[in-house]
Amino acid sequence: MFFQKEIKLKPFSRGFHLITNVITSQLSEMNDFRVGFLQIFIKHTSASLTINENCDPTVRGDFERHFNILFPENASYYQHDYEGPDDMPAHLKSSTLGCQVMIPITNGKLNLGTWQGIYLCEHRNQDHGRNLVLTIMGE
Amino acid sequence: MFFQKEIKLKPFSRGFHLITNVITSQLSEMNDFRVGFLQIFIKHTSASLTINENCDPTVRGDFERHFNILFPENASYYQHDYEGPDDMPAHLKSSTLGCQVMIPITNGKLNLGTWQGIYLCEHRNQDHGRNLVLTIMGE
Amino acid sequence: MFFQKEIKLKPFSRGFHLITNVITSQLSEMNDFRVGFLQIFIKHTSASLTINENCDPTVRGDFERHFNILFPENASYYQHDYEGPDDMPAHLKSSTLGCQVMIPITNGKLNLGTWQGIYLCEHRNQDHGRNLVLTIMGE
Repeated sequence: MFFQKEIKLKPFSRGFHLITNVITSQLSEMNDFRVGFLQIFIKHTSASLTINENCDPTVRGDFERHFNILFPENASYYQHDYEGPDDMPAHLKSSTLGCQVMIPITNGKLNLGTWQGIYLCEHRNQDHGRNLVLTIMGE
Repeated sequence: MFFQKEIKLKPFSRGFHLITNVITSQLSEMNDFRVGFLQIFIKHTSASLTINENCDPTVRGDFERHFNILFPENASYYQHDYEGPDDMPAHLKSSTLGCQVMIPITNGKLNLGTWQGIYLCEHRNQDHGRNLVLTIMGE
Repeated sequence: MFFQKEIKLKPFSRGFHLITNVITSQLSEMNDFRVGFLQIFIKHTSASLTINENCDPTVRGDFERHFNILFPENASYYQHDYEGPDDMPAHLKSSTLGCQVMIPITNGKLNLGTWQGIYLCEHRNQDHGRNLVLTIMGE
């Protein structure tokens, strides 16, 4: 049994944002699945999705700060800079974190750990409304 | 056809550990699937799962050493340090490596390459017994 | 409904390569799926798969250049160097980027964003013909 829909998020500022409730509030269909998976897929190459700590906002701030160290702007060897200094770091961050999360469903709910939440990782300076494909498969 | 169970691993010390046999020995049900997937999902944000070399233990040691360089303790800009210097690096490592692996099943077995094994990546100093959700879907 | 096949890619040189068409041209069976997923799984620990920008080749060059900075050859603490200086960095890059991509299918086609393509990331100096497991599940 499959269910699929596409949604467009509101624009988020550059950084890491907790979106668990934004997702689940639009998926009442999940209640019908005893067991299965939800996949969230982001249709972009300069933003990403990950799962991490859902409580303390300083974790999300530290993610932004540390990923800016690992993937700096204006590296001398970057050749792709059409869209500004945040362009190439955004692509690198996107592949490092990934464009999808797949979460087990148990008894109609996401089977996340107590401290796990879904992050939208916006790597560009300019806010974008990002498009997601939500797909549930299960029984 | 879906099969799902939760297991708790024994505590592992900080580092990268090969757990392929720990997983498969608890999944005799996999024999019933001609084709499909096994997903292993870790319900934590300071440990992770990945697939890598299954033979030489120095590979796992080098992973620990190099990830400690990329995600150092006590960076001046970390704000999240409630639980000690290994806290924030653990979160960063977890999202970089990921909280799940999804492996194709072929004729009742994991269809891994000759040199591939499943790693539990424990990023905290104190041993934890980590909880995993194992889900098989297939036919 | 499941469909699975294994393919062997032609050898690619070290670096990041766009292989979307290589994959889709060998999967006419995808047309039969209204909704579902394609998983591409690489059976190796020194090459990887990711999704990123499908247009400007300098993005792929910048990936190679920046990943060589993050995962350098000949780090003093590497103990695993049997197969040369590109050996351990290849394992580290492989787990950072991942050994699989899972892409939603909608109306018989990969539901990728406009700018998304599938990359084969070859981390070894010597060309290898890499083995992939392609699995479609859907309805």
